[in-house]
Amino acid sequence: MRKTIGIIGGMGPLATADLFRKLIENTDAASDQQHLHVVIDNDPTIPDRTAYLLGRGSDPYPAMLKSAQRLQSMGAQLLLMPCVTGHSYWEALRRSLTAPLLNMLTVTCESMAKAGIRKAALFATTGTVRTAIFDRVCAHYGLELLKPNEEDQQAVMDLIYKGVKTGVRAYDTAPVSAIAEKLLSAGAQTVILGCTELPIAYERFGLDFPRIDPTLELARKAVSLAGGKLKAL
Amino acid sequence: MRKTIGIIGGMGPLATADLFRKLIENTDAASDQQHLHVVIDNDPTIPDRTAYLLGRGSDPYPAMLKSAQRLQSMGAQLLLMPCVTGHSYWEALRRSLTAPLLNMLTVTCESMAKAGIRKAALFATTGTVRTAIFDRVCAHYGLELLKPNEEDQQAVMDLIYKGVKTGVRAYDTAPVSAIAEKLLSAGAQTVILGCTELPIAYERFGLDFPRIDPTLELARKAVSLAGGKLKAL
Repeated sequence: MRKTIGIIGGMGPLATADLFRKLIENTDAASDQQHLHVVIDNDPTIPDRTAYLLGRGSDPYPAMLKSAQRLQSMGAQLLLMPCVTGHSYWEALRRSLTAPLLNMLTVTCESMAKAGIRKAALFATTGTVRTAIFDRVCAHYGLELLKPNEEDQQAVMDLIYKGVKTGVRAYDTAPVSAIAEKLLSAGAQTVILGCTELPIAYERFGLDFPRIDPTLELARKAVSLAGGKLKAL
Repeated sequence: MRKTIGIIGGMGPLATADLFRKLIENTDAASDQQHLHVVIDNDPTIPDRTAYLLGRGSDPYPAMLKSAQRLQSMGAQLLLMPCVTGHSYWEALRRSLTAPLLNMLTVTCESMAKAGIRKAALFATTGTVRTAIFDRVCAHYGLELLKPNEEDQQAVMDLIYKGVKTGVRAYDTAPVSAIAEKLLSAGAQTVILGCTELPIAYERFGLDFPRIDPTLELARKAVSLAGGKLKAL
């Protein structure tokens, strides 16, 4: 029996569209009817996650919970949240929902462990870095995390907020590529694109360092769990 | 006051993702929070529209109506249906819904008329061609429609069903480009990509004849009507 997928979206909108596209492109379907039923609540008015976690904004949790509940009422049986920083609320959300909420950090770490990765660099928001949500999941899978220093972390934030969320088409990615190189030289086997805006930046600006795309990992896991036919990579 | 947009999706899934992305990319926003709230019901199990219109399948209308009603219950205040052939049911749907359902054919013809186009070629499904839904709207705007002959129409259908809906990455588009050239030589000023899978084919396979993209026209009209800030082209 196939499951209807629900996407708690809007965090941000492009990341939501990216997950939706990856769900479709990773389903092996020869007609519309072989694709999965997906319902999306793209509510970009949900307050900024990192701003709140750093003490500068309002709490996004109530709006996230409402969004998930709307999706359940639409018939969603498997929930996805394409926002890494939003996973600070994963445990609280999970407890308040009846439909399972996949954890994209767990899915990503599981996939890295299977691929034999032992050490990875983390590109993420400062909210994700400070709350150490990725660190805890990585530790569980025996993965070592390398992080940018404070100045480099600001360059990653700028790529997310100024390079993607503002919708610009040209952006100087040399600083971020240099940071990736530095962490890879320090022993990281790959770079986790640990904010759902980063796979968009990676594609849009033609970045080319080795990376793990959590949105892609989440999409593929969801297609399998929802009963779709997974497309070969 | 901003309006929540609802997308009656799944016809097909890639066309739905295309409209969603165009809504985001045509909103002039410097942060997530300036984007529009969009709810999507991507139900690809809706029966094939052309098959039914040609007497070979089951009626898609009940599922389309249910989808629109689910979106209304999610709070959608402006409905969009990214399926040209599905517009055969536009009048029936409109009468059964409380939220307005934008007509993408009207939006497209309005835009062509404004651009001074008097004669256009129509690339669409055989369902759309046979029901003459575009012809009626074009006539209202004083636009003349040129259509492929029967053999050429089959080539357009193949591009839609074998080139896009099956998810292939390589497809011989020479026949379709030749058909476009033939109709442009016969006086068409542009080619209407009159099936929502066609803008995907156009981009994916690098087609390059002059065209009108109804999905883009619908997205831009919806951003304006929903109270978003429209991005300059």
